[in-house]
Amino acid sequence: MASTPLKILAISGSLRKSSFNSAALKVAEELAGDGATFTFADLSTIPLYDQDLRDKQVPEAVQTLNDQILAAGAILFSTPEYNYSVSGVLKNAIDWLSRLDPQPFADKPVAVMSASMSAFGGARAQYDLRRILIYLDAHFVNKPEVMIAFAHQKFDGDGNLADQDTRAFIGKLVSALIDWARRLQR
Amino acid sequence: MASTPLKILAISGSLRKSSFNSAALKVAEELAGDGATFTFADLSTIPLYDQDLRDKQVPEAVQTLNDQILAAGAILFSTPEYNYSVSGVLKNAIDWLSRLDPQPFADKPVAVMSASMSAFGGARAQYDLRRILIYLDAHFVNKPEVMIAFAHQKFDGDGNLADQDTRAFIGKLVSALIDWARRLQR
Amino acid sequence: MASTPLKILAISGSLRKSSFNSAALKVAEELAGDGATFTFADLSTIPLYDQDLRDKQVPEAVQTLNDQILAAGAILFSTPEYNYSVSGVLKNAIDWLSRLDPQPFADKPVAVMSASMSAFGGARAQYDLRRILIYLDAHFVNKPEVMIAFAHQKFDGDGNLADQDTRAFIGKLVSALIDWARRLQR
Amino acid sequence: MASTPLKILAISGSLRKSSFNSAALKVAEELAGDGATFTFADLSTIPLYDQDLRDKQVPEAVQTLNDQILAAGAILFSTPEYNYSVSGVLKNAIDWLSRLDPQPFADKPVAVMSASMSAFGGARAQYDLRRILIYLDAHFVNKPEVMIAFAHQKFDGDGNLADQDTRAFIGKLVSALIDWARRLQR
Repeated sequence: MASTPLKILAISGSLRKSSFNSAALKVAEELAGDGATFTFADLSTIPLYDQDLRDKQVPEAVQTLNDQILAAGAILFSTPEYNYSVSGVLKNAIDWLSRLDPQPFADKPVAVMSASMSAFGGARAQYDLRRILIYLDAHFVNKPEVMIAFAHQKFDGDGNLADQDTRAFIGKLVSALIDWARRLQR
Repeated sequence: MASTPLKILAISGSLRKSSFNSAALKVAEELAGDGATFTFADLSTIPLYDQDLRDKQVPEAVQTLNDQILAAGAILFSTPEYNYSVSGVLKNAIDWLSRLDPQPFADKPVAVMSASMSAFGGARAQYDLRRILIYLDAHFVNKPEVMIAFAHQKFDGDGNLADQDTRAFIGKLVSALIDWARRLQR
Repeated sequence: MASTPLKILAISGSLRKSSFNSAALKVAEELAGDGATFTFADLSTIPLYDQDLRDKQVPEAVQTLNDQILAAGAILFSTPEYNYSVSGVLKNAIDWLSRLDPQPFADKPVAVMSASMSAFGGARAQYDLRRILIYLDAHFVNKPEVMIAFAHQKFDGDGNLADQDTRAFIGKLVSALIDWARRLQR
Repeated sequence: MASTPLKILAISGSLRKSSFNSAALKVAEELAGDGATFTFADLSTIPLYDQDLRDKQVPEAVQTLNDQILAAGAILFSTPEYNYSVSGVLKNAIDWLSRLDPQPFADKPVAVMSASMSAFGGARAQYDLRRILIYLDAHFVNKPEVMIAFAHQKFDGDGNLADQDTRAFIGKLVSALIDWARRLQR
C-alpha cells in the first residue's frame, strides 16, 4: 500500500534566478520521486516588515506564503549564507509570518540545507535558522546536515547538479524529512 | 581645546514610525550633546537583496546608506529582536552593503543596543549582529550592553524616555562609542 | 489505563551544592508526579576531556553517565548561563559523551531550562545547547522555554521554590517533555 | 628603532599532546619572530568550575592562568570545534577566570584560530568564543579568520606544518594581533 505523498513547501532564501539554493530545491523535488509533491514559495514580492503596514493589512504575498505553509505537511528551506547568517530576505519573510495568528510554522516538520560558493557551504548560517524557528515551534530534522560547498563547481548554469555525492546528500535529507513528518503525525 | 564632534550614523532595525528602537537612537543623539552629531539612516526604501538586481545597478537607497556609512566616524545600531535574531529589515540592508566595494563598515567603530517589549530587551539578538559584522570588519564596543526591556512601559507615545536608568545606560553607550572611535583613530 | 512513567535523566550544568539549576530539576521531579521517574546525573567527577585519556580508557564517571542516558527515555537539562553560553562543566561532559559509540543522545527526546540571578535567566545560553546537540541527534522540546530569572529571589536556601508562576512553567515543560517522548516513540 | 616584542599568551583549547591547535600556536610563535614572545598556558590541571570551591579558594592553576593573562599584552587562542562550539575544557577555564576580580581579560587584545580534521576547520566554534568574551571585555581581531581544515593532512606527527598557505594565514593573524595590540595601546 503506497503512502500519500508528503506535501513539501520549498522555500529558497535567495531571489537570484540562477540561485544554487533554488536549484538545490529543484533537485530535492526530483529526488523525492513519489514520496512528496513540491510547491515553491516566492519571497520576491514580500515587502520589508513594517508593523504599521501589518496593522493595516497583511500583504498579499505574505498571506499566500502563510497559506502555503499551512497547506504543507513539511517545509524544506535552502538558504545562502550571507555574512554568517541566513539571508535578510528569508529572515524578513519569517518576521512577517511570525506576526500571523495562527502561527503557520507551529508543529511543522522542517529541514534546512544551504549552498554557497565558499568552502563552508553555509555551515555558519543554518544554526541561526534553527534558533529563529524555535519560538514559532517548528520541528527540525537533525541529519544529514547538507552544506553544499563550492556550489558554482557543482551546479551548471541551468541548475543541473551532476555531483553524485551532493545528490545523495540531498536525497537523504528529503527522505529524512518525509520520515520525520510521518513520525510526528498525530 | 574642544574635540571635533564624532559623526555618528544611527541605524534603526525597525521601520515602524513609533519604533522604540528609533526613539532610543533619538535619545542617544540628545545625550551625546556636543560630543557627536547624528545622521539617521532610512532603510524603508531598500529593496530585498537580489544579486541579479545588484549586477545591474546598486539601488539608490543602498548607495545613499553606503555613502552615509563611509562619511560617518562611527555607527550606532538599535535593533528589535524578532524571532531571537536581528530584524530581517536590518539583515537585508547589511546583505546589500556587504556586496559593495570598498566595504563601508571596514574598520568602523560600532555599537549596538536593542529595545523590545519583552523582559529580555533583545538579549538574544545583539550577538548575531556582532557576528554578522565580523567579516565586514567593524569594531564593536563591548560595554555597556544596552537591552531595553519592557520598552512600551519606558517610552511614551511620542518616543520620550522618562526612565532615568535607561537614559543613563544609553548615555554611557554613546560615550563609550565616542571614546572607542577616538581610541581607534589612526 | 495508566501509562508507564517516563524515565527522565536530569542533568544539571552546575556543581554547586545549592545550585538553582539542580534545585529546579528537583522541582521538576516533584511536579512530574506519576508521569515520570527521575535519575540525577553527577558531573562532578568527570575529568577534563583529553583525547589521549579517551584513547586509553573511558573514565568511569563518563561511562556511568553514558549508561544513564541510554537507559533514560528522555533527558532534562538545567544549565546556568556563564558568559552567555552553557557552563564549561556541561559542555565538557557532552564533549566526552560525543566520543562514545553508540552516541547516547541519538534520537533522545530532550528539554532544557536555565536559572540565573540575572534578569535574563539564561536566555543567551539555551540556544547553544540546542546547537551542541544537533550532531548528536537529540530532539528538543520547543516550548515552553523556561528561563528562571532572579533565581535567588525565587528559591530559598534549601532549594524550595515558592514562586507559583515558575512552578507552573517547570510543570508545563515536564509535561511537554513527557508528551514529546510519547509522540516520538517508534 | 625596534619596538618591544609583544607578550602573547597562547591558550590551546585541547589537552591532547599532539593537538593540532597546540601545534598551530607553536607555529604562530615561530612566525612571530622578533615581534612577540610567547608563553603557553596549561589548562590540564584546572578543576571543573564549582562555586563552592571558588568560595573557599582560587585553585592554583586558575591563579597561574589569571596571572599569565594579566602579564600578557595579548592573547592568542586556538580551539578545536567540538559539537559546533568551543571545547568544554576552554569554556571551563574561562568560567573560572570570569569569577576573578579584576577580570583578567578586560581590555585585552585577543585573536582566535581553530584547527580540526573536518572540512570546516572549526568555522562553527570561533563565534561562540567571541560572544563568550564580550562581557569579559576582550577586543578581538577580526581578520584573517584562520580555520585550519583537514588539519591531520597539514600537520605531521611532530606538529610541523608544511602547508605554506596555512603558514601564511597564521603569520597574518599574528601580525594582525601585534598591530591590533599596538593600536589599542593607551
